[in-house]
Amino acid sequence: MANIAKKVSWSSRAEESGVAGERTPLFNGSEQPRLSRQVQLASMVGYMSLTAVPSAPVTICVYHEALKNRSNHNHLNLYFTEIFYYSCVSFQSLDYDNIENQLFLEEERRMSYMGFRCLEISRWVVCGLIGFLTGLIACFIDIAVEELAGIKYQVVKQNIEKFTEVGGLSISLILWAVLNSSIVMLGAIIVAFFEPIAAGSGIPQIKCYLNGVKIPRVVRLKTLVVKVCGVICSVVGGLAVGKEGPMIHSGAVVAAGVSQGRSTSLKRDFKIFEYFRRDTEKRDFVSAGAAAGVSAAFGAPVGGVLFALEEGASFWNQMLTWRIFFASMISTFTLNFFLSIYHKNPGDLSNPGLINFGRFESDSVAYNLYEIPLFIMMGAIGGLLGALFNLLNYWLTIFRIRYVHRPCLQVMEAMLVAAVTATVSFTMIYFSNDCQPLGPEHTEEYPLQLFCADGEYNSMATAFFNTPERSVRSLFHNQPGTYNPLTLGLFTLTYFFLACWTYGLAVSAGVFIPSLLIGAAWGRLFGILLASITSSGSIWADPGKYALIGAAAQLGGIVRMTLSLTVIMVEATGNVTYGLPIMLVLMTAKIVGDYFVEGLYDIHIKLQSVPFLHLEAPATSHWLTAREVMGSPVTCLNRIEKVGTIVDILSNTSTNHNGFPVVVQPAKLCGLILRSQLIVLLKHKVFVELARSRLTQRKLQLKDFRDAYPRFPPIQSIHVSQDERECMMDLTEFMNATPYTVPQETSLPRVFKLFRALGLRHLVVVDDENRVVGLVTRKDLARYHLGKHGLEELQVAQT
Amino acid sequence: MANIAKKVSWSSRAEESGVAGERTPLFNGSEQPRLSRQVQLASMVGYMSLTAVPSAPVTICVYHEALKNRSNHNHLNLYFTEIFYYSCVSFQSLDYDNIENQLFLEEERRMSYMGFRCLEISRWVVCGLIGFLTGLIACFIDIAVEELAGIKYQVVKQNIEKFTEVGGLSISLILWAVLNSSIVMLGAIIVAFFEPIAAGSGIPQIKCYLNGVKIPRVVRLKTLVVKVCGVICSVVGGLAVGKEGPMIHSGAVVAAGVSQGRSTSLKRDFKIFEYFRRDTEKRDFVSAGAAAGVSAAFGAPVGGVLFALEEGASFWNQMLTWRIFFASMISTFTLNFFLSIYHKNPGDLSNPGLINFGRFESDSVAYNLYEIPLFIMMGAIGGLLGALFNLLNYWLTIFRIRYVHRPCLQVMEAMLVAAVTATVSFTMIYFSNDCQPLGPEHTEEYPLQLFCADGEYNSMATAFFNTPERSVRSLFHNQPGTYNPLTLGLFTLTYFFLACWTYGLAVSAGVFIPSLLIGAAWGRLFGILLASITSSGSIWADPGKYALIGAAAQLGGIVRMTLSLTVIMVEATGNVTYGLPIMLVLMTAKIVGDYFVEGLYDIHIKLQSVPFLHLEAPATSHWLTAREVMGSPVTCLNRIEKVGTIVDILSNTSTNHNGFPVVVQPAKLCGLILRSQLIVLLKHKVFVELARSRLTQRKLQLKDFRDAYPRFPPIQSIHVSQDERECMMDLTEFMNATPYTVPQETSLPRVFKLFRALGLRHLVVVDDENRVVGLVTRKDLARYHLGKHGLEELQVAQT
Repeated sequence: MANIAKKVSWSSRAEESGVAGERTPLFNGSEQPRLSRQVQLASMVGYMSLTAVPSAPVTICVYHEALKNRSNHNHLNLYFTEIFYYSCVSFQSLDYDNIENQLFLEEERRMSYMGFRCLEISRWVVCGLIGFLTGLIACFIDIAVEELAGIKYQVVKQNIEKFTEVGGLSISLILWAVLNSSIVMLGAIIVAFFEPIAAGSGIPQIKCYLNGVKIPRVVRLKTLVVKVCGVICSVVGGLAVGKEGPMIHSGAVVAAGVSQGRSTSLKRDFKIFEYFRRDTEKRDFVSAGAAAGVSAAFGAPVGGVLFALEEGASFWNQMLTWRIFFASMISTFTLNFFLSIYHKNPGDLSNPGLINFGRFESDSVAYNLYEIPLFIMMGAIGGLLGALFNLLNYWLTIFRIRYVHRPCLQVMEAMLVAAVTATVSFTMIYFSNDCQPLGPEHTEEYPLQLFCADGEYNSMATAFFNTPERSVRSLFHNQPGTYNPLTLGLFTLTYFFLACWTYGLAVSAGVFIPSLLIGAAWGRLFGILLASITSSGSIWADPGKYALIGAAAQLGGIVRMTLSLTVIMVEATGNVTYGLPIMLVLMTAKIVGDYFVEGLYDIHIKLQSVPFLHLEAPATSHWLTAREVMGSPVTCLNRIEKVGTIVDILSNTSTNHNGFPVVVQPAKLCGLILRSQLIVLLKHKVFVELARSRLTQRKLQLKDFRDAYPRFPPIQSIHVSQDERECMMDLTEFMNATPYTVPQETSLPRVFKLFRALGLRHLVVVDDENRVVGLVTRKDLARYHLGKHGLEELQVAQT
Repeated sequence: MANIAKKVSWSSRAEESGVAGERTPLFNGSEQPRLSRQVQLASMVGYMSLTAVPSAPVTICVYHEALKNRSNHNHLNLYFTEIFYYSCVSFQSLDYDNIENQLFLEEERRMSYMGFRCLEISRWVVCGLIGFLTGLIACFIDIAVEELAGIKYQVVKQNIEKFTEVGGLSISLILWAVLNSSIVMLGAIIVAFFEPIAAGSGIPQIKCYLNGVKIPRVVRLKTLVVKVCGVICSVVGGLAVGKEGPMIHSGAVVAAGVSQGRSTSLKRDFKIFEYFRRDTEKRDFVSAGAAAGVSAAFGAPVGGVLFALEEGASFWNQMLTWRIFFASMISTFTLNFFLSIYHKNPGDLSNPGLINFGRFESDSVAYNLYEIPLFIMMGAIGGLLGALFNLLNYWLTIFRIRYVHRPCLQVMEAMLVAAVTATVSFTMIYFSNDCQPLGPEHTEEYPLQLFCADGEYNSMATAFFNTPERSVRSLFHNQPGTYNPLTLGLFTLTYFFLACWTYGLAVSAGVFIPSLLIGAAWGRLFGILLASITSSGSIWADPGKYALIGAAAQLGGIVRMTLSLTVIMVEATGNVTYGLPIMLVLMTAKIVGDYFVEGLYDIHIKLQSVPFLHLEAPATSHWLTAREVMGSPVTCLNRIEKVGTIVDILSNTSTNHNGFPVVVQPAKLCGLILRSQLIVLLKHKVFVELARSRLTQRKLQLKDFRDAYPRFPPIQSIHVSQDERECMMDLTEFMNATPYTVPQETSLPRVFKLFRALGLRHLVVVDDENRVVGLVTRKDLARYHLGKHGLEELQVAQT
């Protein structure tokens, strides 16, 4: 074991592994540690369920060994830290920094002013398309869910009504549970067996992508299809989930697809937007797609822009922001327009998002100064409950990683949750005797009479027997007195645990709506209790207001977003007046929640072992310098290098570097070249000797690199003959001749700032003679974090 | 002349001049060109009126000589380009990049985690204070304007009513004109004589500050006082101005003051927030102040944040953005709260901003798809009218620079405008026969009956005899039919020219509200005409909607802001539904307007000759490299340098550099030191010999630099004896040992991106041996811009 650890500790310095989604055996031949096939398989599947990336078996062995050595569960946190560090090797960074090599500069210099204008216009066109398609997808999901859920609830309702009279409601329960389970099974199967990355809301994945980490298969067409079908199944299947989160992922996939002008999955190349085939442009469009997704989900175009900026932007680019805003606007407008046609009221643009909080009255006094402390208190409650939610979900996720890693088990768990959800709902409705008169303008779509008198309906059923979006809206807007406190209390309790259990299942689903629903329920309860305590109830009369604040508090406590969430909530409410209370509540919830545990998305990102770069270096890291942080020694290439050497370096799986400083002797830096570029050069056999022998040889162009993007072949698939190995390659034209550099004494915060602001992947560290001494990559920076005992370095296991 | 031009062309390479607001004679002694004292004085005053900065006389001579040589007015544009380039020397850049020298690093390393937490908390406290004080100032301005305008309008109204019956209305006119003129005179005097920088809206100045250019005296207490009093006078004086623009400037001043924990003007040091006494922190707070100003002005906290980001942010910092948002929220809340008390309705938080567009109904169908082309058409009209406005104002400003540069002339012009505004208004009202019935819920504060029948009022007077904010609101919300088309047409026409004449006067005033008013008037006219053309008038029945779109179009056509303006408009409207049309309108207005002429603020920034860095390098500038762009040769210092040499270099007014690379022989870069640091070192006589002789000498600390910040003394005020000149200074501890560098071959866009993303002031260009070969500063980058004929370099005059 010591041998392995040493080996890993060495290789962990290496850059990200070569090829997306490809298994990169760190140990082959004699070095492979002896592990039973069974353990390997199990661990691999387990690991797949964790990161949805088949990774190097060795990573898993270490982690399993580590597990064996620890019976104490308190060490779980520590061992995840270890996984985190090991498995960094399985993620690639995005090359957000332009590769300014001679080819690129020549192309740019050739381009006329009009050429740049056309590019700019095509960027706008792409953003418009992204918005339009994202809106259409949102519309499709909404209509599909509405129709299918309508059928399901009608069937169950008729069945319940039938058996309420004749007795034998258990048959209704079974019908409901079976219906739910089978629909959810469908959703879980496509996710678990076909595209595990489509599980969950996709927000953690998109956060990582915008942060600069390429997560394999996250923006593929197949993922989109599975995501869309999966989310329809999970919502119709009655799980405690929302369809909003997945929209963000969907928007991002649309963006990544549209902007490239081709589909690798469908093997169609439309020969358009070829200029955009590089990470820089693609990530910009993916931001726009994510924003369009938020915008379609919540009818919040500004919130979408802020989400994209909060998660993705390193360098603020005004034109980009403006385009992102355009995509968001088009997206919400498209959704609005098509939904208005669907609702047979064309032109009525009152459905800007999938979720609509309804309109809060604002001509009345919205809130009073002395209510603000109450709101802050609610924020604190939200923070506490959110932390509890996250902690439970964290434990659950670890449990799932250990025991529920086979796809069939995952499907079965999803079915179980669906059945339990239906059973619990049914039981709650059955035993509830909260009957309310059926008003003339009732907002309930499927009022269940059950044991209530004629003209009345079961109040618990409005919360449970409904799509979650409608439940939220009725909690916000129903007249005071529509719910009794016991109903709300029981609902909060059960839904809390159901939602917590549900998040992390192998189904496509979001956590926004369940969070809002939990919060709205206890918020409304809070409002009702407040009104009953104070005798002068007139000002406290509106429990809907407290439901809104509670919803914000709960959501903030779980996801810990700040600015963007405030704006999303304000936009979804359509009322600017609530801005300050919502902000205060979200701030409080974040502060309180952060005291205990991280946000839900951050937890899952950490569990997915992504080298996520935060916005700033840890505050107390000024004593670290580039010298301590950098990876060293660095594999450098000569400006004119032997093909054999290059092939050997690229094939060396124990280092697996992705960027190579190019030097002239003695070790003076003169450029930087990427693995992907070398691969293309090898593939086209751009060797000096060949160039001399064949005078008419076609010169390699940027187009060749673009055509290979983004799925560059692995080095193993490129055949280089023994003769060719003796040839030389001239890298001058292809390397980035002006890579960013820092001296060795640069402090970590300064390195971090440069790295983050420019979205770098490799930062060359040079000495005062401009000689390469090290290379800083994302992992070197992501290692440091501020723990409870000051700065901590995520250490490699000592076992 | 040729001699001067050559000299200037050489010195223009120099860095920004040494000390803010100080006259830096580029030529002294025999070199001083012979100019009559009169010409010098006149030119200097003229130049002051232009840049509000007393600058080097030589700049002005060149400009006057240039003027003499050109009788053709078509060359005006060209000669302003020249001034631009010359007078760059009179602005300093901000040092946004941290000076990471040993002192700083030691301090940071000493600081505990709790220390950083406390800092973070004090940042929040400062932002809260900024928001609170900005809100209070907005509140004060609002109440003062309401009260004073109320008195004025009551007096005039009574007078008009009296003379309507007995005849002799000319006396009323004279009363009105004299009242207006005298109030405006007061405002103009304090601005013109005491603080010329307080003229106008201050938005161009704040844009420059956020862009990284330190404009002398722009964030001083005196400026704030003059600004606040000035804006009250101009609004009460009935000029076609708004009080919103100046709020942004006021907020920025508040932020710059509060964050430093001392007032240099009042000579009070509270010994708090000492850590924030550097450009990095100060600029961050000023962004928050500007956002708080926007927020208070328009009740648009999100818009404020976006404004601050659009104008200022180079590097997106999540915590900073969140604090900016906090300041904005507090600001609008404070204003809201105190105004609710003033309106005797405490707790009613319905006045989030100085301007309140009122609430647009949204339960009805807001707009239809087929109206969107109409909106876009209105956007185009707004763009055209905006371009016309800007062009007229540009010519007017040039006229003012040439002929209206004495303060007394400026005051007289302001008075003239006030009198003309009153006369025109009176004439329009007098000759209008648009009488409307006085409804029960009339929104008119001061309805003028004049020659209308009893129970009716003059409709023209609601537009003219009112504060502009109220006029805007009545154009948005009054019932259809309240205005007849002729009234609106005449009003648009006259107000357009009045507003255009007014902007640029030596009074504190904003252009937002006049623009909105012009736009609302023609927008409403557009709506009315549309309704009269189409017979099925039901859907077009609401001219208020068109007034809103027209207002957006006109404002967009004039100021050309994009994202932030959309959000500001949406927030001020309180209605998310209008987001898409407003965005489309603003986009169209910008595209159409940009075709003809730049935005109003950009024009004024150019006229103020600021080296403003746009967000990206010109698209077609890839053929330029750092080698062509950089300033060279560079004045370098040795790590241990003779005091005499340093004093000589600092005193050399012909170079006037601000940053000096520190080298070890042979020319190897080892650090960068700033003029301000050297000044402090010289002042404290930190010489090697002294350190040896006096063992107990106090070590220089960061505190000494902070105490001197931001008004470092000029080198002339520091006495260095002949003996001391022979001493040596060790710069090792004080220089930034890790300055950012680029190789000579780096393309301009790459240099630009690095410079902009990190907010640099100096970027050292090195060769492949790490030897200093050049220095890139802001001016070197601001020189290049994309003209109609491709990339243009702003050239030094050839005369």
